[in-house]
This record gives sequence, structure tokens and C-alpha cells, in this order.
Amino acid sequence: MINYRIIVRVLSILLIIIGLLMWTGIPISWYFDSSDLDALVWSGLICLGAGAFLRLFKLDKDRSVRKREGYLIVALGWLTMVIFGMLPYIISDVIPGIPSALFETVSGMTTTGASVITDIEAQPPGILYWRSLTQWIGGMGIIVLTVAIFPLLGIGGVELFVAEAPGPTSDKLHPRISETAKRLWLIYVGLTFVLTVVLYLEGMTPYEAINHAFTTMATGGFSTRNASMAAFSPTIQYTVCFFMFLAGVNYTIIYFGLKGKLKRVWASEEFKAYLLLVGLFTVIATIAVQVATAHGWEQSFRDSLFQIISLITTTGFVSADYTSWSGGLTFFFFILLFVGACAGSTSGGIKIIRHLVFFKNSILEFKRIIHPRAMVPLRLNGERVRGHIITHIIIFLLLYLSLFVIGSMVLSIMGLDFMTAIGAVATSLGNVGPAIGKVGPVDNFAWLSNEVKLFLSFLMLLGRLELFTILVLFTPYFWKAN
Amino acid sequence: MINYRIIVRVLSILLIIIGLLMWTGIPISWYFDSSDLDALVWSGLICLGAGAFLRLFKLDKDRSVRKREGYLIVALGWLTMVIFGMLPYIISDVIPGIPSALFETVSGMTTTGASVITDIEAQPPGILYWRSLTQWIGGMGIIVLTVAIFPLLGIGGVELFVAEAPGPTSDKLHPRISETAKRLWLIYVGLTFVLTVVLYLEGMTPYEAINHAFTTMATGGFSTRNASMAAFSPTIQYTVCFFMFLAGVNYTIIYFGLKGKLKRVWASEEFKAYLLLVGLFTVIATIAVQVATAHGWEQSFRDSLFQIISLITTTGFVSADYTSWSGGLTFFFFILLFVGACAGSTSGGIKIIRHLVFFKNSILEFKRIIHPRAMVPLRLNGERVRGHIITHIIIFLLLYLSLFVIGSMVLSIMGLDFMTAIGAVATSLGNVGPAIGKVGPVDNFAWLSNEVKLFLSFLMLLGRLELFTILVLFTPYFWKAN
Repeated sequence: MINYRIIVRVLSILLIIIGLLMWTGIPISWYFDSSDLDALVWSGLICLGAGAFLRLFKLDKDRSVRKREGYLIVALGWLTMVIFGMLPYIISDVIPGIPSALFETVSGMTTTGASVITDIEAQPPGILYWRSLTQWIGGMGIIVLTVAIFPLLGIGGVELFVAEAPGPTSDKLHPRISETAKRLWLIYVGLTFVLTVVLYLEGMTPYEAINHAFTTMATGGFSTRNASMAAFSPTIQYTVCFFMFLAGVNYTIIYFGLKGKLKRVWASEEFKAYLLLVGLFTVIATIAVQVATAHGWEQSFRDSLFQIISLITTTGFVSADYTSWSGGLTFFFFILLFVGACAGSTSGGIKIIRHLVFFKNSILEFKRIIHPRAMVPLRLNGERVRGHIITHIIIFLLLYLSLFVIGSMVLSIMGLDFMTAIGAVATSLGNVGPAIGKVGPVDNFAWLSNEVKLFLSFLMLLGRLELFTILVLFTPYFWKAN
Repeated sequence: MINYRIIVRVLSILLIIIGLLMWTGIPISWYFDSSDLDALVWSGLICLGAGAFLRLFKLDKDRSVRKREGYLIVALGWLTMVIFGMLPYIISDVIPGIPSALFETVSGMTTTGASVITDIEAQPPGILYWRSLTQWIGGMGIIVLTVAIFPLLGIGGVELFVAEAPGPTSDKLHPRISETAKRLWLIYVGLTFVLTVVLYLEGMTPYEAINHAFTTMATGGFSTRNASMAAFSPTIQYTVCFFMFLAGVNYTIIYFGLKGKLKRVWASEEFKAYLLLVGLFTVIATIAVQVATAHGWEQSFRDSLFQIISLITTTGFVSADYTSWSGGLTFFFFILLFVGACAGSTSGGIKIIRHLVFFKNSILEFKRIIHPRAMVPLRLNGERVRGHIITHIIIFLLLYLSLFVIGSMVLSIMGLDFMTAIGAVATSLGNVGPAIGKVGPVDNFAWLSNEVKLFLSFLMLLGRLELFTILVLFTPYFWKAN
């Protein structure tokens, strides 16, 4: 028996939070005297009303949240957030039509950053604030809900950690989970605050600063400018590079870093691989960009660094059109859509820990071929990774690539050209934002058909919730009573 | 200690076989009174001379062939075959330059079928006969060497079966391996003979019939006509469809089929999946082709069936330009480059058994997520597949895709456009032949640079020898003395 009452209760809490967060846009709308005040007031009211209505369903005596309730809460919770999250767009008529409004909201809540708004600067500031906030909420959803709030609800931490942020990374931050939650929350809010101040000091308006701080720390990538990060100074671009990189680090590692425990930071193989990949890719790309464009070394370095960090962390800010340099570089940046940063961060995609496990295990497989009777265990951060976790991770990788292929095929059948199809699917599954083809870094998703928008929205949710969380709901195993 | 003397002895036998097979082209060259007689005579003589020279190295008392010798024999054996196999092209000056001649020979011996010859019909018949024969030798190499001859040499059948034709398909044909060898050899030669006769009766000249029988049964795809199979009648196309399909079946299954043991044929899940995939894909493609071209249902069906079987079996014959129909169909046929037919056949690529294991295991993984403490074994043909075999197969799949990505990146850097790069790599790794982009079904590999040709040659060998066989030679585990 699935305990539906506890699920309804969690959804009601989510709706109330969403409604209150929508109302934080009211002062902004009021300050700019913009046309979206009513839309924000009404949207918030509808969320609060729906949340209050759901509270009418009383809880059972049995308040236990087991595995199946956990999965349903994650899936239905995200669904509720995107359905109610699109209200401001629809009521204000900034984005006409449910498929487009849903696409923008899913893109926000999943921290993807693909947009259907063609002229961003022409939109009312309250709505754009809400747009940035959807990403910040999504990012917080990923970190706080999975690592802290869900375990508080009684869901076994490890199981849902596997569902939302798998990989052998369950380093305990603190024995008491509520403490962990508070600390992660503090880091996320703190870093967002610091970044807002820094961006303001470097020349952004307070409004721009808070919007970009939201979407940077969430590795989201929505901007209030049509030109994205290309509209800002090199200093700001470097700052955003640094904070995007930070946002891609496992929050456990950030916590240890802030505590000054650098030895524990350095003990993380995923962190070292992340650093190494960014460094290595930047060197390669800088040379290639300089050769292709002759823009000068500083700009080649900055453009490369920015685009690489932006794509690896799945943020999706753009400071230069990486598809305009050369065929080889286009392919290179396309591949980056499949990397992802660290598990336990707000970044989406495959994530480095999985690549690392696959890479290490492949090397070891050759040893196993030569010595078939020897025990050849895989070690990560000095600890042995159990066989079923390796299998799970490798299956995830292949499933991810299979979904990429199936998705690209569906879009091809829907009439998109090859490059656009594979680009749109890769960037949606990986929650990145820009892609290649006709959905490149200087393009937009507005021109796509409603069917394509809905399909890509599904892929964004699928990718954000680490495939299994959603797909398991479509299997008979899930619905069969124990 | 690696027993190099036994390796040298095997290479000498290979050279003698190659030399004698080259001389089987002499009557053809003589009959057509063509210009390549000298080239064939001299090439054969050089092979026989080199083979005789290598026989001067005496065998040790220790004649055991262990795992490491086995791998070296496979790798060096194939290397020897391609290096000496290109002599007729070079001596006759049909293909000028070593990179091009090597490419054509590797493409032949690996049964790929990609060609650098632009006007095939203008070439002397003896050389074209040798070109077709390289594929037939390669196909025989895959079946007979791995399943029968190598075990005779003392290499444990299973280990090398894993190296060249992995998958849980080691159904024993017959307890005595030399008997197995003879039977497989008889099936391969017998089917080639039957096809030659059928093609002759359907209107090919004897010369055309034997060439196409060679390259069909080897799932190779070299043709003596510029238009490939489009030059022949619908009847011949249907015949070739049937035999290509047959050539993609596991030889164990063909053996049981010929013996009338249809129950055992039907017990093979891989065979059923193969049949199902071809059927399903043909239905989908036929409708799509008919919608896109309005060529009439018979032609749409025949073009679809032919191209699907040709690509799945990695033969690579072409009866229509599948990239000219629609974007969706181009993508569809591109994906087919990654399928492959059954293990234990002459076909290349990933092979259906691996897709099947991955597919079944993915479904089961969802069951394992819901019931983490339950034992959920994977069964194939009613038997339980052991965990390390599943891991090995899944790692193979991911390694294959990684090599595809790395290879595409290398070609992009070498200056090829996106579609051509991914097409060339996919078709080379999968030993198919035609691809997409500028190496599509009506294009040719002649225009590529020498570096690209050498790189693709390496990929063809890598794919043909199931990745691990070659890659393991580059690991320290292989070379470390026990």
C-alpha cells in the first residue's frame, strides 16, 4: 500500500513554499512599477490556495515514508513545481501557450536554462526575477531536498541519495541530518549572497546581480540580458567562471573547504578529476580558439575557460558563440554536454564520478582479462566500491546514452535536422541550456513546435531526476504490492 | 616469458595460406587476359617466400600457446595479413600509395567494405578478385580461427572466444574441436558455393557471382560494380538480402538449422531478437521511405529491407542512397551502424547479444532498485549469465561508444565536418562500409587524407578484433611477466 496522504502533505508544503517565493517578486515588480504585479500576486495566491486545500487531507497514523512514497514525492513534487511555476508566465501573458510556458518553467526548475523568450530585455522585471528564482529553487531542490529534507521525512538517506545524486559519495557531513540540512542551506544561501555583492561591486545593477547570482549558484544559466554573459565585462566573466566552478563542486567538499580541512578536499578523487578536466580542456581549447580566431590569447583563454566551465557545470551561460570557431571545436563543446560536474552539486548531466568509475573500471577490466582468477577491486578515495554500485553506475551511463539516441531519433522523426536534434536532446537530458545546430549558444528554443517543447521538457525532468527516479515509475516492479 | 617462436610459426603458416590464395587469382587474370597477372604472381611469391623464411625459426620444445601468445597471434596475424595483403594493389599500381593500399586491405580483411577505389569497373579483374577474396579470408578468419583453429593450437577455446566473439554463446557444436572446425568451414564454403550458383542462375556472370558470393558471406560488401547492388535486378537483391541475413546468424545456429533441429534454433534469444529487429525496422522504414519518396510499396519495401539487413549485418552493400530520403531516415540508418548481427557470425559491430544483455539487465536493474535485497539474476536462453560476464559486456558497450566519441573528435580535429567524422568512425569501428555525410552510401573514402586513412584503418582493426584484443596490448598488465 502506498501512503498517498503523506505524499499529498509534502505537495501541500511545496505549494505553500512556491507561493511565498513568488510573492518575493512583488517588491521588485512594485519598485520597477512594472506590469507584472497582478500576475505575481495572483500566481502566489493560487499556489497558497492549492497548498491550503491539500492540507485538508488529514495524515494517517502511519506517517512512514518508504521507498515508493519517496520516489513518488520526488516525481510528483517536481511535477507540481513546474505546473504551478508556470502561472506567472501565463497570467502575465509573457509566454503565451501552455507548452512554451511549461518548457520555460521546466527549464528553470531543472536548472537547464534553455529559453523560449526571444527578447528577454523587453520582459517585465518581476517575471524575469521569478524566472531566475525557478532555477535557484530547482538548485536548492537538488541539494537540500535530497541530502537533507527527504531523510528528515523518514526516507532512508542512502536510498534517495542513490535516486537523486548517486555515486559513492555519501560522506557524512554531520551525524544529525537536520544539522546537515542547515549547513548545506547556509552554504547555498551564503554563496549566493556573496556572489550578489561581488557582481554588484563589479558593475552590475542590484537587480542584475541578484538574478545572475541565483542562476549561477543553481548552475542554471538564465540571464536578464539577450547577450547572456557576453553583455558584461571580462572581470564579471572571470568572477562568474569561479562561482560556476564552485557551484559544480560537491557540497560536502565545499563544506570541508570552508572549514579549512583542505586534506579532505584533496582526498576527493572526483574533485581532482574535475579540476584536472577543466584545466586540461582549457589549455587545449585556448590554443585551438587562438589558432581559429586570432582574437588574442587573453580573449581566447577567457572564452575557452568560460564556455568550458559553463558547459561542464551544466550552467549554460554564454560569453561567446562556440559553434562559430571551427568544426573541431563545435564537436569538442558538444561532447562537453555529456560531462557534468560533481555529484552532490547543483549541476546536472552524467557527472564526473560516473565517468571516473567507468574509466577506472575499464582499466581494471584489462587486468581482469589477463588475470581472470585474481580479485581486482575498484577503489575510490581509498575505499573499495562494491560491485552492484559499479554495475548501477555503468548501467546509468549506457541508459543515458540510449535515451540520448532514442530522443534524437524522435526529434529527427519530428522533422529536426541531425545536428539540431542531437544538440537539443543532449542539452535537455544534461540540463545544460545551449547546444549546437539551430539551438546553438546564440539561438533560442522558441521556434520549436509544441510537441518538441513538451518532449524536451520531459527529457529535462528525466535528466534532472537521474533517469531511474522517473523511469522506475513506468515499470511493473514499482506498482506491484510488495 | 612469451613464447615468440610459436607466434612466428603461426605467422609463417598464415603467410603461406595468403600466398596460395593470391595465386588462385592467376587463372582469372589469365582468362580475362588482364594486366594484373604479374602483380598476383609476384605478390604470392613474396608471401610464400616470407612464410618459408619464417619457418627457419625452429619451435621450442615448449609448444604451449597461452593467453598472451593467443592475443599476440590474433593481433600480429591480422597485421601480417593486411601488410602482405596490400602487395597486389601496390605492385599492380591499382592503388598508389601505402596509406590507401593499406586502407583497402584492412577494409577487406576486416570485412568492412569501405573503398578508396573510385572507378571500380575500370580495374583489372584479377585485382578485384583478390579484393573480394580479402573479405572472404577475413570472414573465415573470424569464424574458423576463433572457434576452431585457435583452440586446436592449444589456446583455451573459451578465452579466445571471449577475445574475438564474446557473449554467452559458447554452445558446444561438437565435443571434438577439429570436427567443429571442419563443420564451420564446410558451412562457410558450402553457403558461398550455393550463393555463387544462385547468383549465376539469376543473371550474374560467373565472375560477378563468385565475387559477390565471397563478399556477401563474409558480410564484407565489396562489389565489382560502381553502383554496388543497385546495378543488379530486384531478384538478385532479394537473394542477397536472404544470404546477408544468413551470414549474420551465429554459425552454431546455422548448423542446428541445417541439421533440422529447429527447436534449438528457436531457443536462441539472440536469433529471435535478430529476426524481430530486422522485421520491425523494415516495417517502420518501408512506411517512412514510401511516405518520403512515393517510389511504390515494392521498391520502398525492397530498399528498406536491403539497406537494413546490409547495415545490421555490417555487410555494407548499397542498393539505394539512404541519406537522400529524409533527415529522420538518415539518422535511423546511422543508428543501424551500431547494431551488428549475431555473435559467432562474420558480422562486425556491437552485436545483438550485447544489446540484449544490456537491455535485459537494465530492466532488471529497476527491479533491483525496488527490491535491493532480492537476488535478481539475468537469464539468457534459459541459463543464468554470471555477473562478471554482464560487467564485461556492458564495459565493452561503453568502451565502444567512448572510442566512437574519441575517434570522432580526432577526425574533427583533422578537419572533417561533424557528420562525416561521426559517420566515418561509426562505420569503421563497426566494420560496416558506407556511412553518412561525405562518406555516405554513394560516396567513397578516396578523398580523405593519408592520416585519416591510417586512423580509420586502426579503428577497423580495433572493431574487428573486439576492442579488448588490441587494447590489452597497450596495458602494462599484458607485458608484466607473471
